[in-house]
Amino acid sequence: MVILDQSFPNVITVVISSFSYQPRYTNCSLKIQQDESGHCSNVPRNLNMQKLQNRYLFPEISMREQAHLRKYPNEKIISLGIGDTTEPVPEVITSRMADFTSSLSTDKGYRGYGPEIGSKELRKAISKIIYGDMPIKESEIFISDGAQCDISRIQLLLGGEVTTAVQDPSFPAYVDSSVIIGRAGDIEEGTGKYQNIEYMKCLPENNFFPDLSTTPKTHVIFFCSPNNPTGHAASYQQLEQLVHFARKNGSIIVYDSAYSSYITDDSPKSIFEIPGAREVAIEVSSYSKFAGFTGIRLGWTVVPDTLLYANGFPVIHDYDRIVCTCFNGASRISQEGGLACLSPAGFEGLNSRINYYMENARILVQTFNSIGLTAYGGVNAPYVWVHFPGSSSWDVFAAILEDTHIITVPGCGFGPGGEEYIRFSAFGNRKSITEASTRLKNFFKRRNHCSSPEPCL
Amino acid sequence: MVILDQSFPNVITVVISSFSYQPRYTNCSLKIQQDESGHCSNVPRNLNMQKLQNRYLFPEISMREQAHLRKYPNEKIISLGIGDTTEPVPEVITSRMADFTSSLSTDKGYRGYGPEIGSKELRKAISKIIYGDMPIKESEIFISDGAQCDISRIQLLLGGEVTTAVQDPSFPAYVDSSVIIGRAGDIEEGTGKYQNIEYMKCLPENNFFPDLSTTPKTHVIFFCSPNNPTGHAASYQQLEQLVHFARKNGSIIVYDSAYSSYITDDSPKSIFEIPGAREVAIEVSSYSKFAGFTGIRLGWTVVPDTLLYANGFPVIHDYDRIVCTCFNGASRISQEGGLACLSPAGFEGLNSRINYYMENARILVQTFNSIGLTAYGGVNAPYVWVHFPGSSSWDVFAAILEDTHIITVPGCGFGPGGEEYIRFSAFGNRKSITEASTRLKNFFKRRNHCSSPEPCL
Repeated sequence: MVILDQSFPNVITVVISSFSYQPRYTNCSLKIQQDESGHCSNVPRNLNMQKLQNRYLFPEISMREQAHLRKYPNEKIISLGIGDTTEPVPEVITSRMADFTSSLSTDKGYRGYGPEIGSKELRKAISKIIYGDMPIKESEIFISDGAQCDISRIQLLLGGEVTTAVQDPSFPAYVDSSVIIGRAGDIEEGTGKYQNIEYMKCLPENNFFPDLSTTPKTHVIFFCSPNNPTGHAASYQQLEQLVHFARKNGSIIVYDSAYSSYITDDSPKSIFEIPGAREVAIEVSSYSKFAGFTGIRLGWTVVPDTLLYANGFPVIHDYDRIVCTCFNGASRISQEGGLACLSPAGFEGLNSRINYYMENARILVQTFNSIGLTAYGGVNAPYVWVHFPGSSSWDVFAAILEDTHIITVPGCGFGPGGEEYIRFSAFGNRKSITEASTRLKNFFKRRNHCSSPEPCL
Repeated sequence: MVILDQSFPNVITVVISSFSYQPRYTNCSLKIQQDESGHCSNVPRNLNMQKLQNRYLFPEISMREQAHLRKYPNEKIISLGIGDTTEPVPEVITSRMADFTSSLSTDKGYRGYGPEIGSKELRKAISKIIYGDMPIKESEIFISDGAQCDISRIQLLLGGEVTTAVQDPSFPAYVDSSVIIGRAGDIEEGTGKYQNIEYMKCLPENNFFPDLSTTPKTHVIFFCSPNNPTGHAASYQQLEQLVHFARKNGSIIVYDSAYSSYITDDSPKSIFEIPGAREVAIEVSSYSKFAGFTGIRLGWTVVPDTLLYANGFPVIHDYDRIVCTCFNGASRISQEGGLACLSPAGFEGLNSRINYYMENARILVQTFNSIGLTAYGGVNAPYVWVHFPGSSSWDVFAAILEDTHIITVPGCGFGPGGEEYIRFSAFGNRKSITEASTRLKNFFKRRNHCSSPEPCL
């Protein structure tokens, strides 16, 4: 079995990722001696950056993909890795964006800066169409260039002095940006967890929901539903418990609903469906997966004006200040597209794409069931979360890539709780998905009958 | 003379801006007593946010504009305030963006996520066309959604533990984002300066360049040339001094060249024209003013791989990590436009817009000269910086707005060194600029003959 070494030796930038373990330049004057033209600044490296132990997950996977391509230049790689949309945007949406873009070359149609917080029209449309009966006002919606960027702005908002809990596993940007803003201690060698960050295990054994009776109180709770990577959508009862827990402890929930449009059952699509959430939650959401806008960049964040700091100051005012100072608005072209998405025709077109990806998810789930592997998710989210008991997830990632030329995501990339799991993305065109299904079935059939002294997966 | 009160009483959100002086909710339990439905979190307000004394400058001006419009609903306001482009984008650029956008609805043309750091093609084009002979590699260029956003990412990169110097006056985002990241002490009542931030006065008396022999050593130096707001472009000799100063002190210069395309003399357009800059500078730049992309959002940052922290670690690796974790790439549509801007036809079209704005600047400079006011800038930048000796700049702002219905920017919004000055933006169509010129001439003619006991401006 070919296994890529976990210290990533086969990528060019190995020095970067392993720097914190084996500093090459421990002393600048040393370097100057070696190289007369050398000059080091006197600026200390930001200790928070130094704490980040690994490269960001997705660029790492992308580099492994490149390495694999160099090794097998004639093989067709199928990506079930990074959750990237593949199906065209409905024409009703692109044509509105294209028309708007063309009008920018006319005297009448040209537009300069928009409001930093986004156009009133789009904020209104999101309030009305996405939030409907929920008590979310247009003035509480901040348009952005995407959820990942908003998470980092929320970290700037709350600062480095507060405590944080995250689901384990979860989207790595929550932990990484918490480290960058200065909230984390060092990483613990044995557990792979950062000190001062509370990891709330969310796995099949607890129905993907933390045991709140034993969860310590923190200032901030990152919670993503439907969850990336497990695909689990929290139920109404679970979210009620979460809101109650946050109210009791005075916590702020940062709720990521980027995948809410994939929910097929009656799970809540927004934390604001839960009574009492307006006083404890910020919601981050995105057009990326909802509308295939991963490359177009558009998202939004809701900060209710009833969410208050301990001293009674409204959080929304500080968030407005962050957005105006550290951001300058989403592209007006993307915002125009965002409006078209919310039109009846736009919505209909997007729903057909979402159904398409969810059919892919069903195919993947069936594939794993037929192999005899336990697969979760795929019902309320475009991710399938597969258990490989006893195996390292980077090992499984490497073995699958080596044999089937399929890119996946190792579960441990989402936190220590993701070890032994692999996330398969259901984004892709049908032909790729069925081809992937065939390759996976063949691979695991062979593995199940292998006679190697190494453990079969 | 009508003067708007500096504590901004005529805008709705006065509670926000004056919060840090007169807390309305000093205690959450108090509020809960007042309002049974109230709930405060236990999350302390971020002390850094609490230190920000005023609202961000440009939204503040926009609110004053709205208030003025309510007072004079029939007057035609002319904005020489926020530096926002007004002239259409050349068709050769919008058509490429529109074509790309349309192709997103086709199987062949659809694109999802791009690299977080931007497309290779665009990075290559910027390296070749913008940096030409300068030693800047494509791999050192990070495409972004604009300079203001990059400044905040650079603040995340460098963290809260380093010391900072800024030009005074300068673009307010440098100071404000330094406060947000935790580098500043409290504001000093008398001077209006934040403690721990070094304000380097750059005014006519020192040819808009700090006396470096008396400037204290700091880790980071923000330097903008052509400067916003003064319009001064630093000379080659001045930048040589700056690079020498940074090398001597081990500082990192964060150089903002967002207005470099407006330089008409032989002043450097990039810090990297100066030998030795690669070891001491990061350069932030933008398509906003260069290409009228203020609403389209595109910029870039150069981090040379020879820029090292005190321990020898390359800054570029941490910046890459910040971009991958806290950002998800500029819109692909904007990037496509960015490529078209760098084509010969795109460049030619943009140059004609730049010349148009610079003709506006000449008209404004002549206007002030004819009035007998001293005006700076307007030669290498689309800003004219006018001195009103002995007057408060908010007073002058208010008086001009009240009488001429022209929006400007009070110099003190750019730092205490901007007091007594007003920034006039040369962005606007010619008709507005000539109309503004007439209104200003009439206003100041009347003022110069006024008999009021209040001082004439």
